[in-house]
Amino acid sequence: MTRADAWIVTIGDELLRGEIVDSNKSFFSDRLLRLDLESARHVSVPDDPAAIEEVLREAASRARVVLVSGGLGPTRDDITTEVAARAFGRRLLRDAVVLKEIRAFFHSLGREMAANNAKQADFPEGAEVLPNPLGTAPGFMLQAEGALLFFTPGVPRELQRMTDEEILPRIEAQLGRGGVVRALLLRTFGLGESTLDHELRDLARSDPDVTLGFRTQFPDNLVRVLVRAADEAEAEKKLRDVVDRIHAKLGELVLGEGERPLEEIVGELLRERHLTLAVAESCTGGLLTSRITDVPGSSQYLVEAVVSYADESKVRELGVSAADLKAHGAVSEPVAQQMAEGVRRRAGTDLGLATTGIAGPGGGSPEKPVGTVCVALSDAEGTVVRRYQLMRDRTRNKLLASQLALDWVRRRLLGLEIGQETFPRLRGTGGGGS
Amino acid sequence: MTRADAWIVTIGDELLRGEIVDSNKSFFSDRLLRLDLESARHVSVPDDPAAIEEVLREAASRARVVLVSGGLGPTRDDITTEVAARAFGRRLLRDAVVLKEIRAFFHSLGREMAANNAKQADFPEGAEVLPNPLGTAPGFMLQAEGALLFFTPGVPRELQRMTDEEILPRIEAQLGRGGVVRALLLRTFGLGESTLDHELRDLARSDPDVTLGFRTQFPDNLVRVLVRAADEAEAEKKLRDVVDRIHAKLGELVLGEGERPLEEIVGELLRERHLTLAVAESCTGGLLTSRITDVPGSSQYLVEAVVSYADESKVRELGVSAADLKAHGAVSEPVAQQMAEGVRRRAGTDLGLATTGIAGPGGGSPEKPVGTVCVALSDAEGTVVRRYQLMRDRTRNKLLASQLALDWVRRRLLGLEIGQETFPRLRGTGGGGS
Repeated sequence: MTRADAWIVTIGDELLRGEIVDSNKSFFSDRLLRLDLESARHVSVPDDPAAIEEVLREAASRARVVLVSGGLGPTRDDITTEVAARAFGRRLLRDAVVLKEIRAFFHSLGREMAANNAKQADFPEGAEVLPNPLGTAPGFMLQAEGALLFFTPGVPRELQRMTDEEILPRIEAQLGRGGVVRALLLRTFGLGESTLDHELRDLARSDPDVTLGFRTQFPDNLVRVLVRAADEAEAEKKLRDVVDRIHAKLGELVLGEGERPLEEIVGELLRERHLTLAVAESCTGGLLTSRITDVPGSSQYLVEAVVSYADESKVRELGVSAADLKAHGAVSEPVAQQMAEGVRRRAGTDLGLATTGIAGPGGGSPEKPVGTVCVALSDAEGTVVRRYQLMRDRTRNKLLASQLALDWVRRRLLGLEIGQETFPRLRGTGGGGS
Repeated sequence: MTRADAWIVTIGDELLRGEIVDSNKSFFSDRLLRLDLESARHVSVPDDPAAIEEVLREAASRARVVLVSGGLGPTRDDITTEVAARAFGRRLLRDAVVLKEIRAFFHSLGREMAANNAKQADFPEGAEVLPNPLGTAPGFMLQAEGALLFFTPGVPRELQRMTDEEILPRIEAQLGRGGVVRALLLRTFGLGESTLDHELRDLARSDPDVTLGFRTQFPDNLVRVLVRAADEAEAEKKLRDVVDRIHAKLGELVLGEGERPLEEIVGELLRERHLTLAVAESCTGGLLTSRITDVPGSSQYLVEAVVSYADESKVRELGVSAADLKAHGAVSEPVAQQMAEGVRRRAGTDLGLATTGIAGPGGGSPEKPVGTVCVALSDAEGTVVRRYQLMRDRTRNKLLASQLALDWVRRRLLGLEIGQETFPRLRGTGGGGS
């Protein structure tokens, strides 16, 4: 039987009890594709020595690369390391340098290392330690039964960083294929996955060395472009060519290249242009501002935000007309416009951005059902406002409305159209434009 | 080898490419636990005949129950049914009744059935059809190699309904056990997983029918209590007994029973007491308010929030003293106190809640390193304010600071202590209290 490229193994009772949805396996598989390695199997087993040993031996005999996560913690359930040693006939050795580092990690937090943390410095003989700058559990690499095995902690942020910084470079060095693989991610907003697939499939069909993959990260859709070529120059050229054709086809629906979320893209545009922003939120309830402030350095352009949940707060803090509130309701174009203008005026910023809507599940009416959302953007040239009909779900309405608002800022700063004719194809996201 | 209770198998290229995070496996496992059936293995394979056949035969020979999802659709990639027939030596038979139902389903949507949908009426000989009221792909049950196999479509809502209505009753009828199992989740905040494990392990150790599981949902830690007993009454009594002992041991560090997040628990307390809240955020940047507004009906108690990112906004909108800002800095107890008092005064609410801090990665100093956070809570009785030293990571600082602020409200409304002596054990979260 020929070996598969890769198997992914995750370990933990919590997985087999359905207590968490395991995102680590899909992360691993996504990353391996960047090296043109396909995952042939995902397996999860509980914290049981026999089950772990069996699956590790099976994986090592069936795949060239095995990525394992979970069971490296300090508790007595965490037995992956000792079982791996037994599975491949290695002794367990304590690494004095790692032990010192773990002690220092706790010391930096003003704490003493607990006795059970010491076992996190144990590794199977012959293993190469993979540093974990974000936690106390280092990972390790082991070569056994013809496979390259990597063991990582189960905490997503720890294993993600370890994968990118320690694991992928080692796999590339060890398995170095004849050809070269290059991959790029494009973040798009406004088209559903099946529409994207339909629009782009011809780009890949004509060339077997081009693969397109699609992944939804609501409300965005990510397109992964993978090209294979004989050498680096050819690969870069081919990748650029495909990416340029996607840009030509999708235009402004491409938010950017790479993993960067929209709030980072918008932040960079504001910073480059030395512009300031103030935000008035109703239905997004703070989420829009929280996304903006997720970006380090956002205090350079975000001056302030108001979450005016109550009507009287819209009047008092934002200068919305009580008469308009009464005549048109809080979820209306005039109110959204006055919110954007009011917050811009009081904060003295270049831009004022506002949302008001019915997030749900309550509060809908026949004229304004749940998912009715107004967005407004005000600057020195005036104010643009528009009503959308989004979804039924509160969480998704908050997220999608915050995305629309951020995308308006992006479009405004890039000189693209906002307002009436924008997002004609939003329906494709499963949302439905107005 | 004795048979495991259950294996879960999911099928689809999109899983092995990391394009989606598979939540079906954890759903299946969670549901099986209600019948006291433990999942011994989760396996995912691509839409490849050899891989599917291998895993189906392996699962049928190793487990008593096998739940399979994916590959029942109409496209040429959907091959699970024909491979299952081949794997267990059955002919494939077209079911005339099902075919008619699929035609009727399309007819009800005003469409003609496409030719490729006909294969969704094919089943292995001897299979029992499981109706799918939400889609065109029925499931089926097959007994083979001593196992009970259930095949479901991969669409979560379709398989979830099929599991509850068709699959669980059949498993219970076929495997009917003697005992009863009961489970409960406890949400805790302020103790790390290893400390929790250490504090609680004796509760489980003395009784083999009690199992404790731990799961981190940063910054909370969840404890799952699972008990087995001969009958329902005994199981309920045993569960209550263990849960009461955990409450006695952890006290106010238990936020609540069940999955409800802290913002829901706090929301209920505010609603019950008919109290209103206003929020002034700096370092949490809108996240605190966004969490509060994630709860449907939060407009009943949240009046407004201000995210004062700039110093001048703290002065202008919240009435913070410019002299105190200069003397103590924006991240200081006096400023936090004035923010909480200012937002409460201007919104006219019962409670005013404020955060100010250095989320990072920039902005730290030797006296006030990244992670320095002040929380303040103001009500008719006065204002409590305290400084914490949290973490190095921006995202976690926002989340942990919002959690501390929400927990202050919970504690205040329950008459528990906040301030100097609170969270002595927060260090255990890996965070480090002040």
